[in-house]
Amino acid sequence: MSTIVLKRTGQKMPLVGFGLWKVTKSSCADTVYEAIKAGYRLFDGAGDYGNEKEAGEGVRRAIQKGLVKREDLFITSKLWNTFHARDHVKSITKKQLELWGIDYFDLFLVHFPIALQYVDPAHRYPPEWFDDDGKVRLQNTPMQETWGAMEELVDEGHAKNIGLSNCSGALILDVLRYARIEPQVLQVELHPYLNQNALVNLAKTLGVAITAYSSFGPQGYVELSMDKGAPSLMNVNAVIKISQKHEKTPAQVLLRWATQRGIAVVPKSNDVKRLQENLQCDSFDLDQDEIESISALNIDLRLNNPAEIDPRLAIFA
Amino acid sequence: MSTIVLKRTGQKMPLVGFGLWKVTKSSCADTVYEAIKAGYRLFDGAGDYGNEKEAGEGVRRAIQKGLVKREDLFITSKLWNTFHARDHVKSITKKQLELWGIDYFDLFLVHFPIALQYVDPAHRYPPEWFDDDGKVRLQNTPMQETWGAMEELVDEGHAKNIGLSNCSGALILDVLRYARIEPQVLQVELHPYLNQNALVNLAKTLGVAITAYSSFGPQGYVELSMDKGAPSLMNVNAVIKISQKHEKTPAQVLLRWATQRGIAVVPKSNDVKRLQENLQCDSFDLDQDEIESISALNIDLRLNNPAEIDPRLAIFA
Repeated sequence: MSTIVLKRTGQKMPLVGFGLWKVTKSSCADTVYEAIKAGYRLFDGAGDYGNEKEAGEGVRRAIQKGLVKREDLFITSKLWNTFHARDHVKSITKKQLELWGIDYFDLFLVHFPIALQYVDPAHRYPPEWFDDDGKVRLQNTPMQETWGAMEELVDEGHAKNIGLSNCSGALILDVLRYARIEPQVLQVELHPYLNQNALVNLAKTLGVAITAYSSFGPQGYVELSMDKGAPSLMNVNAVIKISQKHEKTPAQVLLRWATQRGIAVVPKSNDVKRLQENLQCDSFDLDQDEIESISALNIDLRLNNPAEIDPRLAIFA
Repeated sequence: MSTIVLKRTGQKMPLVGFGLWKVTKSSCADTVYEAIKAGYRLFDGAGDYGNEKEAGEGVRRAIQKGLVKREDLFITSKLWNTFHARDHVKSITKKQLELWGIDYFDLFLVHFPIALQYVDPAHRYPPEWFDDDGKVRLQNTPMQETWGAMEELVDEGHAKNIGLSNCSGALILDVLRYARIEPQVLQVELHPYLNQNALVNLAKTLGVAITAYSSFGPQGYVELSMDKGAPSLMNVNAVIKISQKHEKTPAQVLLRWATQRGIAVVPKSNDVKRLQENLQCDSFDLDQDEIESISALNIDLRLNNPAEIDPRLAIFA
């Protein structure tokens, strides 16, 4: 299995993992169990996905049946926006570990560089973007406070590695100025319509590993009516031609376009055959020309942009 | 004269000012004097421009000749990257005020969200990007420390207003979380090839005034061989047609495209006639259609990008 070696700990992060976004509670335990059976070792979760308890059940079942040991798995989760204050980082991480039924996360990411007002998990969990009255309430917790608390999670053994998600250049560089423990991974939306070349170059220069989310572009947003009418990347001529030439699926080509350049991916699928195809996306290599022709599809189409929820959340402006 | 009212102090900032970037030392005093005579009241300088002493001479001459009083002028300067540490912010601001021969800046901006190693002004001033050996040396001063020192400049009367330059969404939002004195102005590259619509929307939402620099796009970069071969905005059909219809110059149209939306501009010219034309750019109004047809020229062409100096400076990635 291809991996990326994380700089600080030397820990190996699988290049292909399973993304738990939009995996329903009712199917999640079985999905995780089947994914482990199919060979997946990395699971990319988040407090916000609302399925941590069920994902943990899938993991526990796989361990009980002897498929894997805990240390064979790489479990990622993310800190939600309402828990950016120092004390809340700690308390919610413990709660998330309890939900999963594990002692530590292999990687814990700041989900967004956005601080929202605290919501007691007993009142509403996951808290999502909107308060009870439908309003978005900002909270003035600087990123430096949040990052300091993330570092303490490492000190205390709750997270082996910490990182950022949905961050761009200037803020990443600012975090690096005060970080005692540097971010090891940056997870961002990245697909041929949003190739993020400049950010990929910066992360490589800094030695920060990148995980791409939404590798299939608009497809993952159709069910949310957030695909912006963009044509599916699976139907784009350049992708189809390359997939035919290599006798692979368009999905495999889209994943390989990232992984061949050392960018990790976290696709999901409910279909066992596709699960396996996605995992085997490094069974072939694209030519440099093919990679470039796919990168040339870039139109800076960002599908996950909090500015569309509230103009004060324009983190990508 | 059209102005923007700054939120915190109620001070009025002229919508059209004179930009001192690339004004040579030898011509600067005369240029500033002539510009004041032509009606300019805002001068946009920076430590990095290397002409603060001479600009100050032009101001002094105009005051001595009774053209203006100090309080009629709005003088902006900027903190260079090598002075981001708290003590250096203070010492260099005092030096810059001495060079200008004034007691306070109306506006003082953090030039870039980039911290470089300190250079003693006695050794090299302005220090620019590269150290004596041609290397770029980063310094780990977090923006929060720099901003705290900027706030103290206001407390101590050295700056009436403070702000940011070359910053984008996520970092601006982080500064706002810890700011005791909020940034009043954001100065960024902004022209039809880089229309910055998302950033303009964010700044308007936050009540931060925007100043556009490089309003004429590539033209200002030709002499630096940094125009990236982009066709001059003065020769673009859409701009020419609109300028002919209104019987204005293409330059006036490019400036009006910004000022009509409340975005301040700081063009420069060595030609007295053009100086006056630029200042009179609010003597006409564009139709909404015309504004949109100019905005549609956007190709996200960024001419001033420090990542091209050093990949670790990718603040816009």
